[in-house]
Amino acid sequence: METTSTTEAPKKKKGVALAGVNAGSTAICTVGHTGNDLHYRGYDIIELAKSATFEEVAYLLIHGELPTTDELIAYHGRLKKLRGLPTALKEVLEHIPKTAHPMDVMRTGCAMLGTLEPEAADRNVHDAKKLGDRLVSCFGSILVYWYQFSHFGKRIEVETDDDSIAAHFLHLLHGKKPSQLHIDAMNTSLVLYAEHEFNASTFTARVIAGTLSDMYSCITGAIGALRGAKHGGANEAAMEIIERYKNADEAEKDILERMSRKEIIIGFGHPVYTIADPRNESIKAVSQKLSEDNGNMTLFNVSSRIEKTMWDQKKMFPNLDWYSASSYHLMGVPTGMFTPLFVISRTTGWVAHVIEQRIDNKIIRPNAEYTGPENRAFVPLKNR
Amino acid sequence: METTSTTEAPKKKKGVALAGVNAGSTAICTVGHTGNDLHYRGYDIIELAKSATFEEVAYLLIHGELPTTDELIAYHGRLKKLRGLPTALKEVLEHIPKTAHPMDVMRTGCAMLGTLEPEAADRNVHDAKKLGDRLVSCFGSILVYWYQFSHFGKRIEVETDDDSIAAHFLHLLHGKKPSQLHIDAMNTSLVLYAEHEFNASTFTARVIAGTLSDMYSCITGAIGALRGAKHGGANEAAMEIIERYKNADEAEKDILERMSRKEIIIGFGHPVYTIADPRNESIKAVSQKLSEDNGNMTLFNVSSRIEKTMWDQKKMFPNLDWYSASSYHLMGVPTGMFTPLFVISRTTGWVAHVIEQRIDNKIIRPNAEYTGPENRAFVPLKNR
Repeated sequence: METTSTTEAPKKKKGVALAGVNAGSTAICTVGHTGNDLHYRGYDIIELAKSATFEEVAYLLIHGELPTTDELIAYHGRLKKLRGLPTALKEVLEHIPKTAHPMDVMRTGCAMLGTLEPEAADRNVHDAKKLGDRLVSCFGSILVYWYQFSHFGKRIEVETDDDSIAAHFLHLLHGKKPSQLHIDAMNTSLVLYAEHEFNASTFTARVIAGTLSDMYSCITGAIGALRGAKHGGANEAAMEIIERYKNADEAEKDILERMSRKEIIIGFGHPVYTIADPRNESIKAVSQKLSEDNGNMTLFNVSSRIEKTMWDQKKMFPNLDWYSASSYHLMGVPTGMFTPLFVISRTTGWVAHVIEQRIDNKIIRPNAEYTGPENRAFVPLKNR
Repeated sequence: METTSTTEAPKKKKGVALAGVNAGSTAICTVGHTGNDLHYRGYDIIELAKSATFEEVAYLLIHGELPTTDELIAYHGRLKKLRGLPTALKEVLEHIPKTAHPMDVMRTGCAMLGTLEPEAADRNVHDAKKLGDRLVSCFGSILVYWYQFSHFGKRIEVETDDDSIAAHFLHLLHGKKPSQLHIDAMNTSLVLYAEHEFNASTFTARVIAGTLSDMYSCITGAIGALRGAKHGGANEAAMEIIERYKNADEAEKDILERMSRKEIIIGFGHPVYTIADPRNESIKAVSQKLSEDNGNMTLFNVSSRIEKTMWDQKKMFPNLDWYSASSYHLMGVPTGMFTPLFVISRTTGWVAHVIEQRIDNKIIRPNAEYTGPENRAFVPLKNR
């Protein structure tokens, strides 16, 4: 997610450079045109979250249109075959320490894969789409292979027969087939995180693509941007907040105190949306359902009380990260994997933008306002 | 280098997005304010190339001012101690195949080092500067360790007692102490490539830094952007051009033919400079001196004849990449290492910009012009 860095009303958009400046054109996404709407290639996110699988959305973003039934079946088959990891990559992952940030694992895994399965120099669209499918399919394998080896000394088999990316990830993580409820919840989350126009990580991918660099460089760079606390790192920070409280009353009291000290509450506000985050409703429903299934409403109640408090006090609305935190936690996902899950999903959007930037064939090269010293004479070392 | 993508006069700046738009402020560099000037923190590049070492420039960029004699001696000592590579990183480099692009090695090496020596989460300036020194000092070790192992099966000792970064790199590459002429030539080249305001790779580093991600993510992303044929990859492409010809007459004839077919001649023109590239004079002198020492003027003569032809026909001037190609070649550097050398140098500028972007505390998030389908109704799978 993208988050504003202050608790002020988001409409001020303080702390955002190039806000409102067009850095290019896109046919992939619109964000916040009416204050709280999001469309992937013209389709409303609320419809997609309700009725589409992540594979349909991946196909829509990477390959351009929603698939027919036959195309979707073939696509599931293709994605399944792309889950495996080359031996050299597994060996590299085994050298990454247990203490590493999982986003650093994603960054390194993607960079390394590019040395083993490089993209052709002509940067053709066909290969780029295939590479997009490869990355979306194997990123879960990279993450969980490292996790199981570094934490438990296990070399897991990453090629499972699960039908979806959501099920594959949960299966690898927990070592058993996930419930349909968890598959559906993960699926909805992946649909919601898939694409968001020129956010900082996607823009990073486009700046890199503009030099005609390879796909791995673009996605590795985007992973690096998503890692930041003001971007993808926000869902991890949201988890730290909601974990602090035993119940909703305690949460409200403490959040009010923190607001009075002007502390930033991660998970609220947005650099583009002005009225609400359109994805909140879908992910909130997911969190509620998982909580009910779990028989413990504490995290959900804490989350929704803070939502109410932030709105009552500051007219700030939760963004997608807010209820994603409790949803992932309730599916047994370690907090450090929240942003890597965002990577798996957003890779679909990143790849679409890389392809678009290459076709546009523009290098992105802004100017800067100079604030440094005026021309000054060089002083030789001996006279300094 | 940054290059324009057409053979048209560079003043049109076609193919550049955000040209002339301020994406932030900087005290590090000015480029092309009078059409052909470049200053690092107020100092003219022509003076720096003539009188400063790369270590002085690295200190100026990363640490903010030109060092005194005592500071410079201490800095050389610190940099020398930062050349070593952790065992896990060496083992990762040994898994990267010989066929890999050396820029993919740099990208992977930087990403991996970040899992072993991570930056503290508070992103403090002191650590960032230390990390900058670390990366500038060990990038040559990463590149040549991989090269010697993958190409010749040798596990080299990367911690030499060479006094400079230029000498360290050439020593590792050739397995013997380099001549003073080669050290001086490499030094000048590193000074010239060190910094260039908001070019695409530096801008990538700043976009990533804007999310408060870690230094390794910023630099890994920047490496990915520099890899592109329209950016750092240009010095490799320039080498391919000048290698084609037996002599200057043959070069002129062929270049004229290619120009008549509107082929792009890499190494000419620039998205910011309009009159000339101020660095050309310095690197041309380096190339000439190395050629004379080598007793073979062919590459220099071919390069300078093409320079004349491009100016006579199109009023296009060579950029830094043009004479860097012959200079590196004459020092025995394999063509695939030209852009990695650019990385070693430009890391100083990248680190300075990352620190500046963090202090500025802005996320970089532009908008996009939407050119895709208008809102359309979702069609369920069975009806497609």
